[in-house]
Amino acid sequence: MSILGLDIGGANLKAAAADGQAAVRSFEIWKAPDRLEAELESLFAPFGQPSQFAVTMTAELADCFATKAEGVAHVIRAVQQVAGDRPVRVWRTSGDFVEPAAAIAEPLGVAAANWHALASWTADHFQIDNGLLIDIGSTTTDLIPLVGCKSAAAGLTDPARLQSTELVYTGVRRTPLCAVAVSVPYRGGFCPLAAELFATTQDVYLILQDIDSDESDFHTADGRAATVEMSRARLARMLCCDREEFSLEDARGAAQFIANVQLQILSTAAQRISERQSEPFETVVLSGSGSFLAARLCEASETLRGCKVILLPTETSPAIAEAACAYAVARLAKDADGPA
Amino acid sequence: MSILGLDIGGANLKAAAADGQAAVRSFEIWKAPDRLEAELESLFAPFGQPSQFAVTMTAELADCFATKAEGVAHVIRAVQQVAGDRPVRVWRTSGDFVEPAAAIAEPLGVAAANWHALASWTADHFQIDNGLLIDIGSTTTDLIPLVGCKSAAAGLTDPARLQSTELVYTGVRRTPLCAVAVSVPYRGGFCPLAAELFATTQDVYLILQDIDSDESDFHTADGRAATVEMSRARLARMLCCDREEFSLEDARGAAQFIANVQLQILSTAAQRISERQSEPFETVVLSGSGSFLAARLCEASETLRGCKVILLPTETSPAIAEAACAYAVARLAKDADGPA
Repeated sequence: MSILGLDIGGANLKAAAADGQAAVRSFEIWKAPDRLEAELESLFAPFGQPSQFAVTMTAELADCFATKAEGVAHVIRAVQQVAGDRPVRVWRTSGDFVEPAAAIAEPLGVAAANWHALASWTADHFQIDNGLLIDIGSTTTDLIPLVGCKSAAAGLTDPARLQSTELVYTGVRRTPLCAVAVSVPYRGGFCPLAAELFATTQDVYLILQDIDSDESDFHTADGRAATVEMSRARLARMLCCDREEFSLEDARGAAQFIANVQLQILSTAAQRISERQSEPFETVVLSGSGSFLAARLCEASETLRGCKVILLPTETSPAIAEAACAYAVARLAKDADGPA
Repeated sequence: MSILGLDIGGANLKAAAADGQAAVRSFEIWKAPDRLEAELESLFAPFGQPSQFAVTMTAELADCFATKAEGVAHVIRAVQQVAGDRPVRVWRTSGDFVEPAAAIAEPLGVAAANWHALASWTADHFQIDNGLLIDIGSTTTDLIPLVGCKSAAAGLTDPARLQSTELVYTGVRRTPLCAVAVSVPYRGGFCPLAAELFATTQDVYLILQDIDSDESDFHTADGRAATVEMSRARLARMLCCDREEFSLEDARGAAQFIANVQLQILSTAAQRISERQSEPFETVVLSGSGSFLAARLCEASETLRGCKVILLPTETSPAIAEAACAYAVARLAKDADGPA
């Protein structure tokens, strides 16, 4: 019996099988929500005919849906349409699967639950009695305590997760710099930053060479290339400088400062979560495209220093790197069915 | 001899004559810089045949220009083209006009100088010996000390103005909320804000009824209408809530908090500028679409409380309301020519 795990996000559709096969398809759902079924059919193509589907999602947050309830119903109905008479189940933050009708009836239990699927599978798979999952993505960071081989998150909805600092709205690519720091060092003093989307954390990590330059990548704040030179120009604009007033040295100093502020934000969040636990963390599991920053966090944070570190993509399936939550939900569904 | 004042911005072209006639034309220069001449011709149409032109600008900052120098040259050449053999002069931050060739040769003196034209004319016209011009716009705020009937700004370029807090990158419409506050009150606690451009200060002031609702205005963060109801939905998204989790009461509490933070930012800037002056301010001049906030600042700030308040559009030409810098540069040019 083959189970296909699905993580249906607002900008990307991800599928993975429990054996590690995975696929990712870019699809901005807010632009054409009615095309979701057709996009899912294309996404499923490489997987032959799975016998059932396990689903988690964040796409219900897209602003084409008036409410999360409307988004959850739309996503689940699209999956059902493509699945036909094959079973579909949906992961919820109470730590179990639920039938489509029940998910639609109680949408807040399944809305934005993909982090919970990843945390639940990770805790169980690595038998983590007392640890922290740190998943740093392009936009947000999840910091999920894992206790007794389960997720021990204090917050379950996104507003509650923001309040518990288990969701920190900061990431390594899309975060506007004006949401990280008020000012940066500049030629012996400090200069306030423009409140504009002129540059993002991607520029910071390009300049610091944590992210590779890519002349063919135009997913940047100004639509120009993801190169160090262009990142310097974007960062200059945050100080209302142009390139002539802002050397590569200036750029490195500002970038390092912003990276330090971001690390401090994450470190404070980890500290607050740690203070709610009965024991210090023993293990840290790193995941996501920002795992380079998570590794640095493990060094910088007093709470995490000395913990055993597990890097998810390296120690499990390579599918984890691109489609971690889809892979996790497939594995959870397989485990729920018991040994084959 | 009729002089036409021009304020050439990145998103709006403004023209005003010294008699108070004014025109504004929306034009996003970064989308089609080569159309500037044609747009200027249309802008000039209502004014008959002015005998000369006085220019100030900010359009050189648009990211279609690789450097400010390139932008300044582009703007001045377009004006010259349309002016033909009529004289053109450009305001610079040393407090005088300069010929086009000299402006192109030293672009940083004329780049983003429109605030300086407004401050210079205001100081002279109202004979302000010891005061502060507060011009709060959609995106930024200028706080310019006026001493001895002249601008007494400490910073002349934009990076220097940011550092002196005479330019504060905060305004009443376009400012992303994640650049103002880290978190807001929410149901008895605080909730961090998403680092996204989901909502702006326009939503805050719509909810607080400082800005009027306008169902036909779609210049908002999500392109939906500028109404209280839609602003509530946009603000909800900043807490990862949807409308069902975020009442109008929640919205008012969050909006009031953000407005208070913004007022505090401006109050701190005014305080820092005051500390550099030899005497306390006696007069405050208010200008811009955010003059309602500037009036509140005069009450809230210890530095400004008790000062005589001049509201520019009320006490001069109505043109000031829409095209203050263009009007100022026309008046400066007329005054420079001496009595008719």
